[in-house]
Amino acid sequence: TTVRLDHHRGLRKHFPEIIYGPGKNEEELQKIVESFLEKESPFLVTRISEKMAVRLKNRFPQLEYYERARLLGVKPEGSLVGQVAVVSAGTADLPVAEEARIAAEYFGNRVEAIYDVGVAGIHRLFPELEKLRAARAIIVVAGMEGALPSVVAGLVDRPVIAVPTSVGYGANFGGLAPLLAMLNTCAMGVTVVNIDNGVGAAYFASMINHMLEGENGKKRS
Amino acid sequence: TTVRLDHHRGLRKHFPEIIYGPGKNEEELQKIVESFLEKESPFLVTRISEKMAVRLKNRFPQLEYYERARLLGVKPEGSLVGQVAVVSAGTADLPVAEEARIAAEYFGNRVEAIYDVGVAGIHRLFPELEKLRAARAIIVVAGMEGALPSVVAGLVDRPVIAVPTSVGYGANFGGLAPLLAMLNTCAMGVTVVNIDNGVGAAYFASMINHMLEGENGKKRS
Amino acid sequence: TTVRLDHHRGLRKHFPEIIYGPGKNEEELQKIVESFLEKESPFLVTRISEKMAVRLKNRFPQLEYYERARLLGVKPEGSLVGQVAVVSAGTADLPVAEEARIAAEYFGNRVEAIYDVGVAGIHRLFPELEKLRAARAIIVVAGMEGALPSVVAGLVDRPVIAVPTSVGYGANFGGLAPLLAMLNTCAMGVTVVNIDNGVGAAYFASMINHMLEGENGKKRS
Amino acid sequence: TTVRLDHHRGLRKHFPEIIYGPGKNEEELQKIVESFLEKESPFLVTRISEKMAVRLKNRFPQLEYYERARLLGVKPEGSLVGQVAVVSAGTADLPVAEEARIAAEYFGNRVEAIYDVGVAGIHRLFPELEKLRAARAIIVVAGMEGALPSVVAGLVDRPVIAVPTSVGYGANFGGLAPLLAMLNTCAMGVTVVNIDNGVGAAYFASMINHMLEGENGKKRS
Amino acid sequence: TTVRLDHHRGLRKHFPEIIYGPGKNEEELQKIVESFLEKESPFLVTRISEKMAVRLKNRFPQLEYYERARLLGVKPEGSLVGQVAVVSAGTADLPVAEEARIAAEYFGNRVEAIYDVGVAGIHRLFPELEKLRAARAIIVVAGMEGALPSVVAGLVDRPVIAVPTSVGYGANFGGLAPLLAMLNTCAMGVTVVNIDNGVGAAYFASMINHMLEGENGKKRS
Amino acid sequence: TTVRLDHHRGLRKHFPEIIYGPGKNEEELQKIVESFLEKESPFLVTRISEKMAVRLKNRFPQLEYYERARLLGVKPEGSLVGQVAVVSAGTADLPVAEEARIAAEYFGNRVEAIYDVGVAGIHRLFPELEKLRAARAIIVVAGMEGALPSVVAGLVDRPVIAVPTSVGYGANFGGLAPLLAMLNTCAMGVTVVNIDNGVGAAYFASMINHMLEGENGKKRS
Amino acid sequence: TTVRLDHHRGLRKHFPEIIYGPGKNEEELQKIVESFLEKESPFLVTRISEKMAVRLKNRFPQLEYYERARLLGVKPEGSLVGQVAVVSAGTADLPVAEEARIAAEYFGNRVEAIYDVGVAGIHRLFPELEKLRAARAIIVVAGMEGALPSVVAGLVDRPVIAVPTSVGYGANFGGLAPLLAMLNTCAMGVTVVNIDNGVGAAYFASMINHMLEGENGKKRS
Amino acid sequence: TTVRLDHHRGLRKHFPEIIYGPGKNEEELQKIVESFLEKESPFLVTRISEKMAVRLKNRFPQLEYYERARLLGVKPEGSLVGQVAVVSAGTADLPVAEEARIAAEYFGNRVEAIYDVGVAGIHRLFPELEKLRAARAIIVVAGMEGALPSVVAGLVDRPVIAVPTSVGYGANFGGLAPLLAMLNTCAMGVTVVNIDNGVGAAYFASMINHMLEGENGKKRS
Ligand SMILES: Nc1ncnc2c1ncn2[C@@H]1O[C@H](COP(=O)(O)O)[C@@H](O)[C@H]1O
Ligand SMILES: Nc1ncnc2c1ncn2[C@@H]1O[C@H](COP(=O)(O)O)[C@@H](O)[C@H]1O
Ligand SMILES: Nc1ncnc2c1ncn2[C@@H]1O[C@H](COP(=O)(O)O)[C@@H](O)[C@H]1O
Ligand SMILES: Nc1ncnc2c1ncn2[C@@H]1O[C@H](COP(=O)(O)O)[C@@H](O)[C@H]1O
Ligand SMILES: [Mg+2]
Ligand SMILES: [Mg+2]
Ligand SMILES: [Mg+2]
Ligand SMILES: [Mg+2]
Ligand SMILES: [Mg+2]
Ligand SMILES: [Mg+2]
Ligand SMILES: [Mg+2]
Ligand SMILES: [Mg+2]
Repeated sequence: TTVRLDHHRGLRKHFPEIIYGPGKNEEELQKIVESFLEKESPFLVTRISEKMAVRLKNRFPQLEYYERARLLGVKPEGSLVGQVAVVSAGTADLPVAEEARIAAEYFGNRVEAIYDVGVAGIHRLFPELEKLRAARAIIVVAGMEGALPSVVAGLVDRPVIAVPTSVGYGANFGGLAPLLAMLNTCAMGVTVVNIDNGVGAAYFASMINHMLEGENGKKRS
Repeated sequence: TTVRLDHHRGLRKHFPEIIYGPGKNEEELQKIVESFLEKESPFLVTRISEKMAVRLKNRFPQLEYYERARLLGVKPEGSLVGQVAVVSAGTADLPVAEEARIAAEYFGNRVEAIYDVGVAGIHRLFPELEKLRAARAIIVVAGMEGALPSVVAGLVDRPVIAVPTSVGYGANFGGLAPLLAMLNTCAMGVTVVNIDNGVGAAYFASMINHMLEGENGKKRS
Repeated sequence: TTVRLDHHRGLRKHFPEIIYGPGKNEEELQKIVESFLEKESPFLVTRISEKMAVRLKNRFPQLEYYERARLLGVKPEGSLVGQVAVVSAGTADLPVAEEARIAAEYFGNRVEAIYDVGVAGIHRLFPELEKLRAARAIIVVAGMEGALPSVVAGLVDRPVIAVPTSVGYGANFGGLAPLLAMLNTCAMGVTVVNIDNGVGAAYFASMINHMLEGENGKKRS
Repeated sequence: TTVRLDHHRGLRKHFPEIIYGPGKNEEELQKIVESFLEKESPFLVTRISEKMAVRLKNRFPQLEYYERARLLGVKPEGSLVGQVAVVSAGTADLPVAEEARIAAEYFGNRVEAIYDVGVAGIHRLFPELEKLRAARAIIVVAGMEGALPSVVAGLVDRPVIAVPTSVGYGANFGGLAPLLAMLNTCAMGVTVVNIDNGVGAAYFASMINHMLEGENGKKRS
Repeated sequence: TTVRLDHHRGLRKHFPEIIYGPGKNEEELQKIVESFLEKESPFLVTRISEKMAVRLKNRFPQLEYYERARLLGVKPEGSLVGQVAVVSAGTADLPVAEEARIAAEYFGNRVEAIYDVGVAGIHRLFPELEKLRAARAIIVVAGMEGALPSVVAGLVDRPVIAVPTSVGYGANFGGLAPLLAMLNTCAMGVTVVNIDNGVGAAYFASMINHMLEGENGKKRS
Repeated sequence: TTVRLDHHRGLRKHFPEIIYGPGKNEEELQKIVESFLEKESPFLVTRISEKMAVRLKNRFPQLEYYERARLLGVKPEGSLVGQVAVVSAGTADLPVAEEARIAAEYFGNRVEAIYDVGVAGIHRLFPELEKLRAARAIIVVAGMEGALPSVVAGLVDRPVIAVPTSVGYGANFGGLAPLLAMLNTCAMGVTVVNIDNGVGAAYFASMINHMLEGENGKKRS
Repeated sequence: TTVRLDHHRGLRKHFPEIIYGPGKNEEELQKIVESFLEKESPFLVTRISEKMAVRLKNRFPQLEYYERARLLGVKPEGSLVGQVAVVSAGTADLPVAEEARIAAEYFGNRVEAIYDVGVAGIHRLFPELEKLRAARAIIVVAGMEGALPSVVAGLVDRPVIAVPTSVGYGANFGGLAPLLAMLNTCAMGVTVVNIDNGVGAAYFASMINHMLEGENGKKRS
Repeated sequence: TTVRLDHHRGLRKHFPEIIYGPGKNEEELQKIVESFLEKESPFLVTRISEKMAVRLKNRFPQLEYYERARLLGVKPEGSLVGQVAVVSAGTADLPVAEEARIAAEYFGNRVEAIYDVGVAGIHRLFPELEKLRAARAIIVVAGMEGALPSVVAGLVDRPVIAVPTSVGYGANFGGLAPLLAMLNTCAMGVTVVNIDNGVGAAYFASMINHMLEGENGKKRS
């Protein structure tokens, strides 16, 4: 068989399995979904195309599908813990911000979403400072010039995980502009994940949040 | 002779001549300086090396030399007009900010310098808003992630001329990171000049300031 | 809700709201259009796809749609002021030049369009010099080698806002070639906006034109 | 004066001030050092040249200078908490790994250094797994192909902060190769900082470590 | 005629002809297939589109078509020799890994396929070490961060031919990230072919395998 | 009107008008074609889409359409002069080679086409040396590694105009690989045009050929 | 021995030998110079460092050394033919323009140098049009935005060989900006050589000039 | 201690230890050299600076130092086996070609060096074909346009290991041009190592040569 069960992720205790959607054909995805449903294990497929998601949902109605976030999965049971914030700059960053938000909930985190607070209207950020300070980790999603993580990290003393998005045009080069901006941040307390990698940011934020919860080591679902 | 008098610049009425320093040898620069001193015309040499500047100043003591800004010249007489602001993000952006500030004064503009107000400490910008609003054009100099012009343009309704600097390291790529960030700004009212091009920004700001002064068309010096 | 009203734009007195079209679904755009129509406020949606524009126009017949410029909006009332010029190099740059021209009119500027005067036939530019000198700000749109802004700025003592376009092929790299050319201009008096950013150039030119008109601070529409 | 006190860093409670060395001249650095010594505040200057460091240390003998790490400062008093690991791939990554290690100690963290365990000899990593699991955050410094963070994150369920270094030659492009590799990691639980940014990684790891210590909010030194 | 028979490949003794599919129209491909069928010579067309493959197979039913590998051809007769291994990191690398595996079989090699053993779960690689040591050349196919060839070459003393794939997103840049990682490998015994070039890796591995077999010089088919 | 007649091309005596197809809509192209047909002037439209070409040919049956070369036009009358050679590396370079060949004929040159002689089978080039030496200018079209112009220029003492093509995959980057190879040629006597720019190479070769013919200055058609 | 006599250059009839200076040590260059002096053959060493040139000239006083052009050689005897023009944009492009001019004279061409006529002052070009039209090939050397070749080719119906220079700063990227501009020229009749490759342009121009002279085939010196 | 013994290389039986010179200070290199001398083990330090090499050789006179190849080491005893060829394009590629040649001898291979046979004079290659066919693996070192490996692989049915060099200027970009050319080779039987990586190519060629020798598994020295 061409798909090897990715047991190493089982080493991480409290998170469901994460499957990368692109490049897998319908038959392969069906088998993966079936195997998780059988062992009643939660899981999350990322970057699933609408066409593929609809076909799988027709076959397995218990699946949850999030169109804008391009996610498909079965959520773990159990209560959410702590606090993670997802901040986004513009409407167009929504698919990535939603991917981060929903994935973080799948990973067992209470999430506060603070959207559409880009730096061109920085005053919109100030009413949100309390919510930001309440979070144990802050995911900041931004395209265009990617300046928002620097500003947030300058205002709030919390770990900021910056997610550049491929939103933009011209000299944006598919997200290269905000990626470089975020890597070059003059603010301390910022790290960066790949362009559009909402789920990676959610995973990292969840690690921090769960370590603080003292739950680290306990398996969810 | 290899140097052709650049008469087209004479078409621009109120600014002194601008000479690009690199690539000219001592003999050529001497001739250029001499010819301007003879006709008692102000002028400005940019990006001059310290060694060359010192040699020329020894020979022509009436020259003014600005070490950090790498400028050498003779200032036009006459009073300064209007208001231009030069904003900079970090201490390390100073050479470019100073190039912009001094060039703008040579071009006949009153200049307000607001330095070291980078986005990682955005609160430092707010006490300066009145000064920013008083300017007819705002030059914003920033390296690293280049976020400052977006923030300034979001706060103040004035034309912002963004100058990326080559300050930074790693994925900065000699100023490419702030350049791309500035080009991708989500704020309206921002244009961009070449990396480290303080003198170009000063010239453009001066054009706007002088048009408003109603002086457009009158020759300075 | 996922769309936050962008009140910072209200700080800028005399311009209608500008909405970035891509990434917004039909429902979101409908709501945005409705809210503007309700408060009888002019606005402009940029980079709208033909399909989306036609659907919205069917629902709201009072909308104006400019196919080539990919703009959709409701124009403010009130007379146009001053003079802005839009110069373009080739027929293929038209979508961006038209975006700049129409946006500038929306922003309340009288606009002179001078098209198809690329540097390979530089003689075509000379009969237009009077019109160029009559403008308070000149937007120069060019793809390919992006040389036109340098030539214009060398001939006319007016602020030139250069707009590189993604027109071209081969080593054009989606507009990178003219972008770099424009940033490296040897002419003084040129600033640059993002590739294809006609609306950004129009906004900046409008700022200059309105400052000269003495209207700065008065709200249009 | 050209240096503005960066009070926003005061908002972050338990860390000393961090000064970026390049671009500051001797006089400026002297003033900065003096002001910190006067108020008996700890601080850290990064990327200081050997020449500048030696001059400052001659004048202020109480300064500590770390040649390989290019750091100069005065260490805060108080005991170190928790556990942070610094892992490095090759001998040539040492300057950056040492910058991370020493900065993390300045920031109040107990640090375990695990050096020279690059992926070409992956067996060298296995005896270190216990130490890695004992850390609350793991900084992984690697040049060349930058594969080490992926391997570490696959083996240990702890947040990994990846630091690409500019070590390498040929198609390394000053650290671009390991930077891209790290951003594209197929392992969950990895975030990335700028090329060679040991101090930024240390700061972020310290945030996580101190949040777990429950010390968050208490000021060190 | 526009297609010149590529007789130089006949110089290489034991391999069938390899045709690059893209850019050839149906008529040209028909002629090529016909000419090989006539002289009963085996051959392999690479990167053939599904549409074209289906049309050709309808006309020439003796053709073998491998959809995922995008290969079409007629296999040489004769037994397979030696041992070549094809290792791949993730499911999404399958098209390239399959291109390598099938091409290597066409070229007369016994092939061991070891799939889905990416570095984020490095433990999955260890049970395969015996198979890897049994191979005379190891093809390692990987996208994302491209770390697998370094790890394999560190574990096994066999020539590793690394194939970066264009699988990934964001800062992957169409395979540039794993390409640079592989070129910068810190392991000895690794060489690299073009992104997605499974057939080129297979050819090279086959050369080594056949030289060892002592068959070099004998023509297959 | 948005299309300005490009009279500067009239300055060049013996060549028909060349129109860049992309970005012009059907109406504009119709007008252009009509105006040339009216004044019975030959012309050439480049990079025309099949759909647009078919529509125009339906309307104006006297048009000649070359599908693979994406050219549409009316050929000048008059005999062809001198000799230009067009050499290409692989079948996939045909569209560009054909663009060069047909355009060169439109420009009045006798053309020798020597196709499919790529460097991987360099022996195929030797039987063609006489034809190459008979040409006054040699256009060499190559994708992939772009080595052919260097080899040709090393063998034949004639001006070589190198045309990189966007044929290839992986690290080809849309023709960047052969473009850089050609610019870095170690052979003297090679110049380069833009990727895929067959018509530009034809024009340049034609200039040389006609200068030698002594026809320079006489208008064809 | 490590230096193989490059006899292929002997195939080109009328030009002296061209040696690439960098990477050859003093001993190797001495041997090369000696061997040419012995057989009384003219030759040209390019990109020679000042230090190396001075040492060689001390030993062999008959050598001619051109400091700015970084050339060293012995000129062929015989009269110069035809006409080649070398045009340059700014003072800083002089080293490359001089390399082209002197090399063209070595290759037996009468050369007209037209310097310092950059596009920012395009009026400076018009008085030179007669000289440009008198040339059989025009070498145009330009850094910064690289617009000059397009303008020249638009004005004069002669083959233009464009030489981008590495003069500039910021987003110039070592000559990449003018290189891309020149490749993307909208003017017909322009080809491009490598950045700073004055000698390559001279060789190509010389080929054209000598073909017209009818001298092709006769050996100079 | 900061240097961990790299025992994994001991897994590879027949080669001495290879040390990467850059980034190691004198003290570290001394310790490394001492430890190898003590256990009488051969070893090779690569990319050593002249200054460092001279100091070490003064202290340990038994060291062999190869200035042009930047290698320092102690050669294993024992006879050389089989045949490896090292081909280079130009004089300037010598440092890398020599690194490959000497390293291959250290690794126990008989080496044939064929230098200065670049593609601009392809006839120089033909007299060498017998030597090339006698080799079991061919290392081809080339800078500039990097075309030589394609030509060699087209002529000889042996595995070609291509080494791009950073020799060149302008659009060479530190070896990127030949690297891309080699990766995009249209010839089968070519793989590529990092720019300037002579030692990596030698190691890989040695693996092939020794496997054929049947020595694989036996330890040299
Ligand atoms: N620092 C600078 N950056 C950009 N352009 C400059 C600078 N200094 C001078 N220039 C312009 O460079 C052009 C060439 O200058 P020159 O080589 O002195 O003839 C002139 O048109 C100046 O306006
Ligand atoms: N075509 C455009 N190019 C650049 N910026 C734009 C464009 N259209 C709208 N914007 C700006 O994009 C920002 C985000 O827009 P929105 O997503 O509509 O809130 C606003 O600040 C607008 O001023
Ligand atoms: N090595 C470093 N890398 C990245 N940022 C730094 C480094 N050293 C200091 N900083 C940050 O750079 C900013 C500007 O520093 P300064 O120029 O000293 O005011 C501060 O916010 C520091 O947190
Ligand atoms: N400045 C230069 N730019 C480009 N090619 C050159 C230059 N100088 C010499 N060459 C060519 O470089 C090749 C290698 O020269 P060499 O290393 O001297 O054998 C020869 O074919 C020369 O024609
Ligand atoms: Mg898997
Ligand atoms: Mg908004
Ligand atoms: Mg036109
Ligand atoms: Mg500061
Ligand atoms: Mg072929
Ligand atoms: Mg040679
Ligand atoms: Mg000048
Ligand atoms: Mg080691």
